[in-house]
Amino acid sequence: MFKDKLDIAWRKRNSLLCVGLDPDPDKIPSSVAGSDRLYLFNQHIIDATAPWVCAFKPQIAYYSAVGAEHQLGQTIDYIHKHHPGVPVILDAKRGDIGATATMYAREAFERYHADAVTVNPYMGGDTLEPFLSYADKGVFILCRTSNPGSGDIQALETPAGSIASLVARMAAERWNENDNVALVVGATYPEQIAEVRKLVGDMPLLIPGVGAQGGDLKQVLDNGLDQAGYGLLINASRSIIYAGSEKDFAQRAGAEARRLCEEINSLRR
Amino acid sequence: MFKDKLDIAWRKRNSLLCVGLDPDPDKIPSSVAGSDRLYLFNQHIIDATAPWVCAFKPQIAYYSAVGAEHQLGQTIDYIHKHHPGVPVILDAKRGDIGATATMYAREAFERYHADAVTVNPYMGGDTLEPFLSYADKGVFILCRTSNPGSGDIQALETPAGSIASLVARMAAERWNENDNVALVVGATYPEQIAEVRKLVGDMPLLIPGVGAQGGDLKQVLDNGLDQAGYGLLINASRSIIYAGSEKDFAQRAGAEARRLCEEINSLRR
Repeated sequence: MFKDKLDIAWRKRNSLLCVGLDPDPDKIPSSVAGSDRLYLFNQHIIDATAPWVCAFKPQIAYYSAVGAEHQLGQTIDYIHKHHPGVPVILDAKRGDIGATATMYAREAFERYHADAVTVNPYMGGDTLEPFLSYADKGVFILCRTSNPGSGDIQALETPAGSIASLVARMAAERWNENDNVALVVGATYPEQIAEVRKLVGDMPLLIPGVGAQGGDLKQVLDNGLDQAGYGLLINASRSIIYAGSEKDFAQRAGAEARRLCEEINSLRR
Repeated sequence: MFKDKLDIAWRKRNSLLCVGLDPDPDKIPSSVAGSDRLYLFNQHIIDATAPWVCAFKPQIAYYSAVGAEHQLGQTIDYIHKHHPGVPVILDAKRGDIGATATMYAREAFERYHADAVTVNPYMGGDTLEPFLSYADKGVFILCRTSNPGSGDIQALETPAGSIASLVARMAAERWNENDNVALVVGATYPEQIAEVRKLVGDMPLLIPGVGAQGGDLKQVLDNGLDQAGYGLLINASRSIIYAGSEKDFAQRAGAEARRLCEEINSLRR
């Protein structure tokens, strides 16, 4: 079960930090060279940051834009082999009608062996079903995303509440039969985190937006922790993996992961 | 410009039919064998159906589920080379924050050389911008999808109208600066097609759901044609590409494409 693996990672590793593996060929240090440099870069980042994380989250677009699917597979395999307690969330934000969603679920879970995947709920519950039916895998449903334009649809008010709050309710009441649903709620909307936490009990929440996008960590924790003091995966990507651009880039990434993990833990107490 | 290419395809080819290239390894005739059998199958389907189509729409999930990205690239190149007047819409339903959306746009337009891509608007206008900024490419935004669960979010009513109608309005009023926006509206919701057509003028509408999903063709045309009698891409995938399963599968696909193209044209008059 994904949720068990995540629970153990949170507690045993004493971290709520999720590191995003978004290797942009233009931003990787030039000292990392070769035809598999995305994978090499990831290896270094993974080993340096692993002591301070509860999960890794590779973003598939960074691999598919440049035809590096093989390196994405290698990256996930590397985490499973060398850091077996750390769940891998494939950030893909997929969503399509049933027959096609089945193919996307196969991509995430059978081709790449991810522990969880992010999905987009716009097309409705039947399009999430093929993902949810993998009962041992996690499904992170976009609820309120961290970007400024997320209000265009997600913040619209209906008589029964905002779209984002309705997604949270459907997640808790209809889509979580296998206890494998989680939600994505941006750090930039802390009041939404508080509302969602009330609606979904101890469901895991993936929180992007604390690094480059400037979400407030204290508010996120105050509003988002579950009753046991866990329940959050606080994601940082660019601020950690590009903390350095010289030969000591991995060391700097590790230091920044440690700093952020410890800052989160100091605010949790 | 994508819209020009589509306009010429509609008029010169006298077809509103879009054929979806969703090659499921389990459904491809066993007579098509080899390590590149998805591509071989597509070649046959493309050549047999091309006289009756205004566009092809490969669905990326069918390739990425089985690690066949190379065959997707070959398929799109084949269409460009052998049927250069026929636009290719990459059905990917992508959507993510700006930096990541830039990577997805690169995937669709620079890696695969698609003429257009489908995108998901749930995350808001800023996440569509990296796609829209390719002014010569088309961007098909999901509005009301053909599946039964599309009502979960898209049909929800706000004080300003349903979510789907608000997406149509934002598409026409905010997102179409480069005149490269199109919408996806399912044949299974003909009243939504009528509403959208009123809101968006002559914007192209991609209509899934007439084949296996049972949408009514007459209603689609009555409600969706633009003033010039075009404006629609009526998609069929499984009902055409799997019309036969024996050695004459391509001939049968061609016959079914012709039948549907001519049925559409008879109802247009």
